[in-house]
Amino acid sequence: MDLNVDMGESFGRYKLGHDEAVMPHITSANIACGFHASDPLVMYNTVLLAKKYGVAVGAHTGLQDLRGFGRRRLDITPEELTADTLYQLGALDGIARTCSVKLQHVKPHGILYRMVSEEEKYAQAFLDAIAAFNPELYIFVPRQSLIWEMGQARQMRMAAEILVDLSYDDQGNWVLEREKQARSPEEVAARAVMVARDNKITTISGRQIAVEADTICCHGDAPNAPQVVQQIRAEFTRLGIPLASLSAR
Amino acid sequence: MDLNVDMGESFGRYKLGHDEAVMPHITSANIACGFHASDPLVMYNTVLLAKKYGVAVGAHTGLQDLRGFGRRRLDITPEELTADTLYQLGALDGIARTCSVKLQHVKPHGILYRMVSEEEKYAQAFLDAIAAFNPELYIFVPRQSLIWEMGQARQMRMAAEILVDLSYDDQGNWVLEREKQARSPEEVAARAVMVARDNKITTISGRQIAVEADTICCHGDAPNAPQVVQQIRAEFTRLGIPLASLSAR
Amino acid sequence: MDLNVDMGESFGRYKLGHDEAVMPHITSANIACGFHASDPLVMYNTVLLAKKYGVAVGAHTGLQDLRGFGRRRLDITPEELTADTLYQLGALDGIARTCSVKLQHVKPHGILYRMVSEEEKYAQAFLDAIAAFNPELYIFVPRQSLIWEMGQARQMRMAAEILVDLSYDDQGNWVLEREKQARSPEEVAARAVMVARDNKITTISGRQIAVEADTICCHGDAPNAPQVVQQIRAEFTRLGIPLASLSAR
Amino acid sequence: MDLNVDMGESFGRYKLGHDEAVMPHITSANIACGFHASDPLVMYNTVLLAKKYGVAVGAHTGLQDLRGFGRRRLDITPEELTADTLYQLGALDGIARTCSVKLQHVKPHGILYRMVSEEEKYAQAFLDAIAAFNPELYIFVPRQSLIWEMGQARQMRMAAEILVDLSYDDQGNWVLEREKQARSPEEVAARAVMVARDNKITTISGRQIAVEADTICCHGDAPNAPQVVQQIRAEFTRLGIPLASLSAR
Repeated sequence: MDLNVDMGESFGRYKLGHDEAVMPHITSANIACGFHASDPLVMYNTVLLAKKYGVAVGAHTGLQDLRGFGRRRLDITPEELTADTLYQLGALDGIARTCSVKLQHVKPHGILYRMVSEEEKYAQAFLDAIAAFNPELYIFVPRQSLIWEMGQARQMRMAAEILVDLSYDDQGNWVLEREKQARSPEEVAARAVMVARDNKITTISGRQIAVEADTICCHGDAPNAPQVVQQIRAEFTRLGIPLASLSAR
Repeated sequence: MDLNVDMGESFGRYKLGHDEAVMPHITSANIACGFHASDPLVMYNTVLLAKKYGVAVGAHTGLQDLRGFGRRRLDITPEELTADTLYQLGALDGIARTCSVKLQHVKPHGILYRMVSEEEKYAQAFLDAIAAFNPELYIFVPRQSLIWEMGQARQMRMAAEILVDLSYDDQGNWVLEREKQARSPEEVAARAVMVARDNKITTISGRQIAVEADTICCHGDAPNAPQVVQQIRAEFTRLGIPLASLSAR
Repeated sequence: MDLNVDMGESFGRYKLGHDEAVMPHITSANIACGFHASDPLVMYNTVLLAKKYGVAVGAHTGLQDLRGFGRRRLDITPEELTADTLYQLGALDGIARTCSVKLQHVKPHGILYRMVSEEEKYAQAFLDAIAAFNPELYIFVPRQSLIWEMGQARQMRMAAEILVDLSYDDQGNWVLEREKQARSPEEVAARAVMVARDNKITTISGRQIAVEADTICCHGDAPNAPQVVQQIRAEFTRLGIPLASLSAR
Repeated sequence: MDLNVDMGESFGRYKLGHDEAVMPHITSANIACGFHASDPLVMYNTVLLAKKYGVAVGAHTGLQDLRGFGRRRLDITPEELTADTLYQLGALDGIARTCSVKLQHVKPHGILYRMVSEEEKYAQAFLDAIAAFNPELYIFVPRQSLIWEMGQARQMRMAAEILVDLSYDDQGNWVLEREKQARSPEEVAARAVMVARDNKITTISGRQIAVEADTICCHGDAPNAPQVVQQIRAEFTRLGIPLASLSAR
């Protein structure tokens, strides 16, 4: 199982997340590319940090809305999405290249994650950019989404993602909570194990449903993020569930 | 001789320059990368336009100051300059790659042109970025500059540039005019011929001095830019002076 | 009748519109406030220009999206809209005050014009900001809109606006054309006269419907904007229809 | 004695400082205005917080460089500085007005503090903006500065500021430390008492020199800022030194 976390979300004087403490425990880092968060120097330092711990690097591309942190829907055109995605992929690649690091994956950030999951025009535009830039990149999206089907049909490298610190409904869709619930490291680690070992998740109604996951994600900006990823790694080690990036398999 | 012009300086609703009219007549396009001007969609369309006319593409990198159009000195650190340059090079490369276009060169824009020409720490940081990203890129700078010497010493591909629509003093340094002088297409073309054929330029004092140039530049945002580049091309054709990009030689 | 045009939409090096040529012919200037267009220096110069010609000044407030020119819907919260509107109103007022100019009106720009016209939460948030900042300001919106009714109920100074260079359907709602139609100065002036004198407008189906207007608008970024406003003024003068800002009545 | 701290420096998702914990202990809040930090909603909430604790509100105006937090010198023109200052003053005033709060003062932020202290053209442009906007505003600057002399000559309300958590040299100029020194609350409070009661400060060479201060400042983004301001207030109370904003005298 791959464990990915959003990294490199600081911007200039503004610090966000716990990159130093989280990086040693994960296998894939989603690095923000300067549109919803990050700046070139933050990106550079984050790539170096990932390299230091042998963590695979991917582009966390988003809407160009720093103030809204890429979480406010913005009605861009598909052409803008394609160009903006190419721009961000290239920018991170330019920085990663100088560190002798190859990009492993791409993941849409925030509201863009939902836009490409649900709307054909955006899914298409997003896949077009990746196919043109580098069709070898893994694409992290929900298994139950339009873009998954479309990417599969195009024989692109779709990687199903489960967000183990969010809630799911009985249909297998993640649920945005009004107030982000604080979850204990033990609870998140237990959910991660259930996903990785049993291919199941417990929904908000208490039922267990089957899920498929190539990668699990937990949020790096939770106050207890370092404890959470440490606990996941400890539990996986204890239970003999291997953790490795997709590219390392 | 190579003829380069700044291209792709529009931004969203804002149009700048005469890209459609100028592109057919030049051999190298310096494309802005979203920091001092341009946006990803403008960059994409500009690369396509360059490709259509067989014009070589380079990155016109600048300070992150859209409002000041990269012309106001900003005291960035050398680390920021290296990271920002990598970011911009990568971003344009990401877009160019999907058009099957390879970058030929890089040129620092506006006040950055002066900063890397004159200050060692910036020259170093700028060359570091290019060496790490792609040491095959030509680097357009003044022949009489610190960065030229430093780049030569590092065996990088320095290309000496003469700005044929600006004035030069007797020492061979270009002079920023308080008010940009309108120059007739004939005058600029005559200066271009003098540089390309005779390796000379007339200075503000009226003397002729020797210059070396691998590429000549004229400004794309002058109101008569299309006429100027057309006239240069016509004169070069009439006199049998070949025009070709550096990569085409 | 009041004739309003969007002014001060340039930004740094980027010029937009024909402010110098248009200003002498209009009675109210909607000045962009730095969110969708403009910058503080442009705002300052535009206020001075309006003052020179005795043109009343209003705030043209928009979404914070320079690249999209405030035309792309962005899902901001009502709290953000209130704060952003106060910020822009205050910013223009700070600049206008030093020119001894008082703000006359406020007009929402681009997609925000539609958002506050149609959605209660945004209409409320927008009116809240104006009521708190200065309830004497005229508010330019369509007569057929939710915000008109809400503003009337709060006894705010609603001013019904007709866009004389756009098309209307039989229900009296303006229609966004896929391609902005070039309209001759004569045609727009004739429509303006019909609105001002006859309280009617011809719809896209060819019918004439009744309209009420306190102010008419035409777009300042049309290539022939100076000719259009000149023609409107000439026709109104010829027919004895007085043109005056709302505050001058 | 007045005790001022920088407030409202968060931006969107990015939190900076300890406004909730610091505000109850200070007498004047310098609120960032969206150029080097803050956004309209942050500004609004910060004004409300200041009002809740009876803290006087001032504009902390800066260079338009969010990434550099207004600490990187940018060569703007004096005209830009005047317009940008008016814009920021007005923006904060627009927000404060709706909270029935009047602005008390203005303080230049970061590198701008130094630019207006040392360079005549910037001092002039900054004072021009304030004189035009509201000549009643107190202006927080170092006593030993060009702008102090110029403001006094114009009979503006200059308020001499001592930064009690920074070091001073024997000439009474503050010294930027390479690494910001962590200072204990006790040490800073002792320095504050020495300034307020004895009109003296200990310099980096260990000498005591005379200083005049109308207001003392400590930095809100230090990790122990809440403890520092709490300690200052406790010491002042213990010693019977009154703390009050300038406008409350």
